[in-house]
Amino acid sequence: MARIYNFSAGPAAIPKAVLEKAKYELLDFKGAGMSVMEISHRSREFTEVLERAEANLRTLMNIPDHYKVLFLQGGASSQFAMVPLNLFGKTKKADYINTGQWSKKAIAEAKRFGTVRVVASSDDKVFNYIPEINNGMFDPEADYVHITTNNTIYGTTFPEIPDTGKVPLVADMSSNILGQAYDVRKFGLIYAGAQKNIGPAGLTVVIIRENLAGKAMDITPVMFNYQIHIDNGSRYNTPPSFAVYMAGLVFEWLINLGGVKVIEKINREKAALLYDFLDNSKLFRATVSGPDRSIMNVPFILPSDELNEKFIREASEDGLKTLKGHRTVGGMRASIYNAMPREGVLALVEFMKKFELSNS
Amino acid sequence: MARIYNFSAGPAAIPKAVLEKAKYELLDFKGAGMSVMEISHRSREFTEVLERAEANLRTLMNIPDHYKVLFLQGGASSQFAMVPLNLFGKTKKADYINTGQWSKKAIAEAKRFGTVRVVASSDDKVFNYIPEINNGMFDPEADYVHITTNNTIYGTTFPEIPDTGKVPLVADMSSNILGQAYDVRKFGLIYAGAQKNIGPAGLTVVIIRENLAGKAMDITPVMFNYQIHIDNGSRYNTPPSFAVYMAGLVFEWLINLGGVKVIEKINREKAALLYDFLDNSKLFRATVSGPDRSIMNVPFILPSDELNEKFIREASEDGLKTLKGHRTVGGMRASIYNAMPREGVLALVEFMKKFELSNS
Repeated sequence: MARIYNFSAGPAAIPKAVLEKAKYELLDFKGAGMSVMEISHRSREFTEVLERAEANLRTLMNIPDHYKVLFLQGGASSQFAMVPLNLFGKTKKADYINTGQWSKKAIAEAKRFGTVRVVASSDDKVFNYIPEINNGMFDPEADYVHITTNNTIYGTTFPEIPDTGKVPLVADMSSNILGQAYDVRKFGLIYAGAQKNIGPAGLTVVIIRENLAGKAMDITPVMFNYQIHIDNGSRYNTPPSFAVYMAGLVFEWLINLGGVKVIEKINREKAALLYDFLDNSKLFRATVSGPDRSIMNVPFILPSDELNEKFIREASEDGLKTLKGHRTVGGMRASIYNAMPREGVLALVEFMKKFELSNS
Repeated sequence: MARIYNFSAGPAAIPKAVLEKAKYELLDFKGAGMSVMEISHRSREFTEVLERAEANLRTLMNIPDHYKVLFLQGGASSQFAMVPLNLFGKTKKADYINTGQWSKKAIAEAKRFGTVRVVASSDDKVFNYIPEINNGMFDPEADYVHITTNNTIYGTTFPEIPDTGKVPLVADMSSNILGQAYDVRKFGLIYAGAQKNIGPAGLTVVIIRENLAGKAMDITPVMFNYQIHIDNGSRYNTPPSFAVYMAGLVFEWLINLGGVKVIEKINREKAALLYDFLDNSKLFRATVSGPDRSIMNVPFILPSDELNEKFIREASEDGLKTLKGHRTVGGMRASIYNAMPREGVLALVEFMKKFELSNS
């Protein structure tokens, strides 16, 4: 079958050029006569892969020198425990903003290791908005404040990053890292599962301000200790080397494209195509309105479950894949991460127009 | 460059046929129009990948139904903490046998969560043998006994699996799982990093007797809790899907080859070719003797550091790659896992013969 447009929320589309390069050198990495999967993680070749990936990520996100970049395993779900285990240094208190299922899981895990206060929540409306944040709401004694910048399931994004003063801000950026520009200096720690904008699943990127590490609780497993990974340059044990290599290819692809600001502009245009259609449609409706709308995940619904199902089925037959929404929201969701070309969004909008015509 | 023979200890060689299949379908997995890396881990397609991988591993290792198979992240190093965090249920006491660097790391991590007794060790001779085990040496009150079946760095293997009676035996089988046949029933829990005999780094296989799970200590992070992964069929969060897919291809390759007993026979023949040469050489010497010799990792030395270096350099020029031994043993190490064809070992032995002739 010809390649299709894949609107999956994650694991998600990977740039075609990246897959083609990986395919080309799958059995012979740069003349080594081996696959990159077969190369020792201590070898010169892999060291270069790792160092280049880090350097390119630093360039893309403009990461200051006093932040460390880690390539880990275990997904954001492991970070839900690693963050409190490492950052509960002084008061073992943290403020969390609850903007969806992933925030909730992060909160549940942190509660097991200290005192968690949920300072704001959008739980009352199935998380279809970002609650109002007022900078005075944060506990100045807290060890950190935690947010989820983009909420994959509900299609919301913080329109502004809260100012938490001297309290470090921790962000789960899994679903919009590299999709829009952020000032890393506003954060104490950023983490992201790779499987949306970075590469294949099985890799987690952590960007941590150096002075936040080194204070892990005694009960922290070695593999959950940021300082251990900092001291060993992400090679305390064997890293997920193929996933790091793929991430490196994605970073190069993004640099060649012009970087995060360029892709953010493209992403905003892609999202606008969809939202504009949705806002003018008499049949389709976006579930999120206003400035909290995500430019990565666009959930939308039709007037009945029958129509939702019909749409998902017919779109799939037309090569527009994985548009089913999360069960808590229902309807559809188009995830339009960096690797989704403008043509894919145009094809989706065209299909929606046709669907509206024949089902009104 | 033509493909070479890769004697790396891990990440290690992957069967060429497996890499070729992965390459063939890298951009279009079974007609889905997407890479297997881009497919949702909840999709029908990936469910099939995961279920088939598990079924094939069960066939290969003859895993009884009351054992669960998990595909996790974090490597054996994460298991060093997961094992005590989950198995310290009654007395928080465990007996460990210290046969090398990985045993030592497992011991250090377990000590942080309970009482560890090292019942036998080969530390006195740079771990070049397996200490004598007598079944009476184990504490019947211990929550478990831990061994490392094959010691990658030192080239030793337990010639017999200790009988620990009613105390569950836990084995780090990272470097010889699927390379030789074991009776899973002798173990309470088996774990293995993938990057030797299973597939690419970033995947950890755990085989756990059902009744050992569900008793994790309160401080156990959710992602370190076996029961969570059992309840969610290894999909509590996004699994390392490409690594699981690759492992599945390796399992299929091994089944087509005839299974573990067949490959064990081949592995024993491969190892015998090397050991026979080493035992008859006047220049080369194996660092391990007797029944403790590993059939996966064969360390050997030459009379001087200069000769070791010369050998490694010239072998590499001849396409025999990554033969440098671990710094704690020195000299050379040939890792001849399942994916190393007999031809590779023959080529190495031929090269050693020539080297001996011209350097004696």
